[in-house]
Amino acid sequence: MNPTILQLAADLSAGRTTSRTLTEQALARIADPKGEGGRAFIKVWRDQALAAADASDVQRKAGLVPSPLAGIPVSIKNLCNVAGETTLAGSKALDDAPPAKADAPVVARLRAAGAVIVGSTNMSEFAFSGVGFNPHYGTPGNPADRKRVPGGSSSGAAVSVADGMAVAALGTDTGGSVRIPAAVCGITGFKPTARRVPIDGVVPLSTSLDSIGPLANSVECCAIVDAVFAGEPISVPQPAPLAGLRFAVPMHFVMDDLDSTVAAAFERALKALSGIGVKVEKIDLPELNELNTINARGTFAASEAYTWHRTLIERRGKDYDQLVYPRIMRGKEMSAADYIDLLAARADLQKRVSAITSNYDAVVMPTCAIVAPTLDEVSTPDGFTKKNMLLLRNTTVGNFLDRCGISLPCHAPGELPVGFSLMGEAMADKRVLAMARSVAPVVRAH
Amino acid sequence: MNPTILQLAADLSAGRTTSRTLTEQALARIADPKGEGGRAFIKVWRDQALAAADASDVQRKAGLVPSPLAGIPVSIKNLCNVAGETTLAGSKALDDAPPAKADAPVVARLRAAGAVIVGSTNMSEFAFSGVGFNPHYGTPGNPADRKRVPGGSSSGAAVSVADGMAVAALGTDTGGSVRIPAAVCGITGFKPTARRVPIDGVVPLSTSLDSIGPLANSVECCAIVDAVFAGEPISVPQPAPLAGLRFAVPMHFVMDDLDSTVAAAFERALKALSGIGVKVEKIDLPELNELNTINARGTFAASEAYTWHRTLIERRGKDYDQLVYPRIMRGKEMSAADYIDLLAARADLQKRVSAITSNYDAVVMPTCAIVAPTLDEVSTPDGFTKKNMLLLRNTTVGNFLDRCGISLPCHAPGELPVGFSLMGEAMADKRVLAMARSVAPVVRAH
Repeated sequence: MNPTILQLAADLSAGRTTSRTLTEQALARIADPKGEGGRAFIKVWRDQALAAADASDVQRKAGLVPSPLAGIPVSIKNLCNVAGETTLAGSKALDDAPPAKADAPVVARLRAAGAVIVGSTNMSEFAFSGVGFNPHYGTPGNPADRKRVPGGSSSGAAVSVADGMAVAALGTDTGGSVRIPAAVCGITGFKPTARRVPIDGVVPLSTSLDSIGPLANSVECCAIVDAVFAGEPISVPQPAPLAGLRFAVPMHFVMDDLDSTVAAAFERALKALSGIGVKVEKIDLPELNELNTINARGTFAASEAYTWHRTLIERRGKDYDQLVYPRIMRGKEMSAADYIDLLAARADLQKRVSAITSNYDAVVMPTCAIVAPTLDEVSTPDGFTKKNMLLLRNTTVGNFLDRCGISLPCHAPGELPVGFSLMGEAMADKRVLAMARSVAPVVRAH
Repeated sequence: MNPTILQLAADLSAGRTTSRTLTEQALARIADPKGEGGRAFIKVWRDQALAAADASDVQRKAGLVPSPLAGIPVSIKNLCNVAGETTLAGSKALDDAPPAKADAPVVARLRAAGAVIVGSTNMSEFAFSGVGFNPHYGTPGNPADRKRVPGGSSSGAAVSVADGMAVAALGTDTGGSVRIPAAVCGITGFKPTARRVPIDGVVPLSTSLDSIGPLANSVECCAIVDAVFAGEPISVPQPAPLAGLRFAVPMHFVMDDLDSTVAAAFERALKALSGIGVKVEKIDLPELNELNTINARGTFAASEAYTWHRTLIERRGKDYDQLVYPRIMRGKEMSAADYIDLLAARADLQKRVSAITSNYDAVVMPTCAIVAPTLDEVSTPDGFTKKNMLLLRNTTVGNFLDRCGISLPCHAPGELPVGFSLMGEAMADKRVLAMARSVAPVVRAH
């Protein structure tokens, strides 16, 4: 297993390694022609990363260590503004856009925490799919099986961490784009309550649903990077005592159509939790089935994406990923009245579901209904649509309900990765992280 | 001039009058066939009002006086839910709607404060015009000249107060519907920052813009009733010292096309303020001109009204006021993308205007560009549209920018009423009320 931020921070602090060494290792993995670096990254900032690493080592010698992230290589997703760089958002259609004038606040906060930014990672074009396929910059192979997709939209983010090209990654999550690739690549991914982290300077997909969260090698890593993103003092929540906690498993919507690997791994995880005293309660939550009808007359993602894209589409629509383009264009047909109704329906569903779920410590579910599909399986529009829906379905619940959530690996060595999700109430982020610290070692199979 | 809440509270407290007496006087004025009661009210709750008055008198004798409003007759606008009553919103199209199950929170708060609710007042149908014309329930005559309209949409509310049929009135203000009728009927009207007062249980016009505020005989009265609506402890802000205050008069948009009465009264008021040491600064605020282009592809009022009305229109559209119907139907054409852009444009304009106006203590302007039109002048669709626009134009600024504002009488006896508006920053409600207490006697001409 790859090292965690706290392990590396200890090594740096004890003089067992340097930021230069860590950064050179990360850059070497990115540059390795036998690796996935060429497809996991859209831009690699080698010189800047080494300069930042050297500066970090110099500062550390003088006792200046701004955070546990100081000197540690991280990657950022290709839709964050970086001063002086053109933000491509995984597309060709923005290649003539002017360079960004300033770092996005989340990027500036990473730098202020001392992180070494090695490059910007590949993604589903405009973050608009859960598969992680990208026709322009290639599709990084899944670390567990290179013939499979890495999940998306933060595809390169997940692969960069799983393959040791970064210790942690900045991802974004509008319908699961942090949690899905974390799950199917076998790492940890945290989606915060959206309002905690500023989305300025990041190309929007859906302003109602977008959130920014970390992908990393442990819950503790996620807690550290999340605090940096949120501009909060860094503190890793203590592991929550598990005995007596009550987890709800909704038997509607999120438990439908699981593939056999996911179903088995999830049941095994529930059994392990029950075994150490967690009360796992399978509950009726038919409210989740309403999501389909609520979204039938148009979605936040399509309408809000179309709003942002419509001028760009006029000029460069033919350069778009042809699997993404029609999904954005669906937003054109939505009426203001249907959008206003959708806002009201969301607020109403949030209230009704929370009245039920707030009686539990967390809602748990498989992060994705399926393991990572093969590239073959998503090579046709029909195959793509079907697998994309099954990858996204469960995680979208958290975005629509404005919740926080974390995906933890729950597969055994040799199995394809499966994610175990804890979903908390809105703003219960620290509590979810505290529970996840205790849950992670229990659900990980050996 | 009609008595204020504090005068009557003192009379009640000293035993010089009773709630029964005040309520009988109000009901007698409503019932007077020579008066406007038949057109100012849609429903009169005579028995309940007298019962509430008697109960208030009994309680007062036992030392139970919940607020300065205790025992005082007030009117509520016909779009608030009252338990057991069908809410008509000034329309015939809701006459088959079921009775409301509960009082709207603002109505419940009035009752809890001990107010005696005498009836529900007439209004522009569905609150969708500034003229105050109503084809179903008649149009109450303007207290200054019965051949003129009372302004709207809270038409009956203003007339009920001006004619002594209530001491204060509950109005709603989506584009000026409290401040306009207050101005053209010669009384005081306060529009709070919308979020301070719950709009539940009130038929919405535009959920982004709706606010609930009082019309009354003084600034102090407005402060008391506003605190009741907001569920806050009642306190009347102390008059703010005027010398040295800086008021901005935007020379764009709100000063265009003033009629001669309004222009003269407003200039006179500015001179009086300057005379006692207020710095009145005429400023450029070309940002306000953007309102026309921002709203060119659809408005909050039309799109949000259409969203609420579309099912009712299917069933009862032909029963709508035919001056209101087409204005609602315009919302049908608006796209989700244009609505989403409108939300962003609003947030952007709020920020840019506030960066300028927050350097001043208040923005001041004529409440309406014109005095109350005659019924004749608004009898044609063209005349109606033109006058409606001039009545609404200035006040809409406060709703779009999410501000608070108050209209104070600034005409001389014998002149047609003219309103002088103070607009404050969002949530500066107490400050605006404190300034208005000092400004009101200065701008009122003698």
